[in-house]
Amino acid sequence: MNLPDPIKNFIHHFSKLPSIGPRQATRLAFHVIGSGKDEIDGIIKSLEGLEGMSICEKCFFVFLPQDKDDKLCEICRDKKRNSKLIAIVEKETDLISIEKTNKFNGNYFIIGSLQKNGVLGSEQKRRLEKLKAVIEKELGGQADEIVIATNPTTYGDFNAAILGKELKDLAKKITRLGRGIPTGGEIEFADEDTLGQALERRN
Amino acid sequence: MNLPDPIKNFIHHFSKLPSIGPRQATRLAFHVIGSGKDEIDGIIKSLEGLEGMSICEKCFFVFLPQDKDDKLCEICRDKKRNSKLIAIVEKETDLISIEKTNKFNGNYFIIGSLQKNGVLGSEQKRRLEKLKAVIEKELGGQADEIVIATNPTTYGDFNAAILGKELKDLAKKITRLGRGIPTGGEIEFADEDTLGQALERRN
Repeated sequence: MNLPDPIKNFIHHFSKLPSIGPRQATRLAFHVIGSGKDEIDGIIKSLEGLEGMSICEKCFFVFLPQDKDDKLCEICRDKKRNSKLIAIVEKETDLISIEKTNKFNGNYFIIGSLQKNGVLGSEQKRRLEKLKAVIEKELGGQADEIVIATNPTTYGDFNAAILGKELKDLAKKITRLGRGIPTGGEIEFADEDTLGQALERRN
Repeated sequence: MNLPDPIKNFIHHFSKLPSIGPRQATRLAFHVIGSGKDEIDGIIKSLEGLEGMSICEKCFFVFLPQDKDDKLCEICRDKKRNSKLIAIVEKETDLISIEKTNKFNGNYFIIGSLQKNGVLGSEQKRRLEKLKAVIEKELGGQADEIVIATNPTTYGDFNAAILGKELKDLAKKITRLGRGIPTGGEIEFADEDTLGQALERRN
């Protein structure tokens, strides 16, 4: 049977989202229709809200600009934080997990999802150039420390090595999170204590 | 750290959707922000499209009304279909799977997700009253056959027994899908041949 165009269009857009396939998107379409106009309007408004968010020019984290000239996220704007200490993370949720430990007072840099083939993607290369430019311009060419906070997995280690090589002249010290986190696990799922330990024991 | 309100609001709405938890909703928020205004607008338009869909007064399937007086879906409106033969399914995706076999020429009735405790929910009761009223009014009190097409699982069997009891005086024959479908499986995932066989061998 032929699905009506509005459903096909919904499936088209939602099955492009991470972890949502065409089958789940189909089920979502029927669920959303059944949930009624008010609920759909709520979902639409929540999406419109996201359109007001910006991406930080310096670290690529998202933030809600207070006026149109805001280019930096709250963390990068915070003068009390140590901008000479930079943690490179793959994704926003990793940053959030690290922030929750209250044990890191540096800045962040979101490199984006790393590939598994040992080569940096074009988006990662573009962002890395940005990081290099920031270190050059704002830190006189050298950070005190760069923590490469990729997942402690085979691919995370592999990508950390690549990033370490790229950045070796741009930091006095390049570290990784201490292996308090079980090897093979993921940063996002570590409890706050384990992640805090890993920060303290970075080496 | 405190997430910006637009992200919290997005998580609030999206984590209410089936199979999406708060963690996946958080990741979706960052993904959506990163995908840019055009993509967000596309998603919003696809949701607005769903607002134009209606739910059939007779069988509870969704349809796109051609004018505002349309109350019935295409299947219920189709005079060539046998309205005295009714398949009760849990969800829209089950209906779609059965339609794809091209072996069923009756009408459908979507009862909604059944509970696992052997009691019909209030929504199911409401819908069942609707079905009884339709059989009373349009079929003179008795359908030729009602196929109770719940999943061939323990709970599906259990709910089928409850529905069968409720409907026993309203159909000459009450059947279930033939067990060509592996017991313990789900209708939605059956291939079209298996499901077609199950329709032919219903008993």
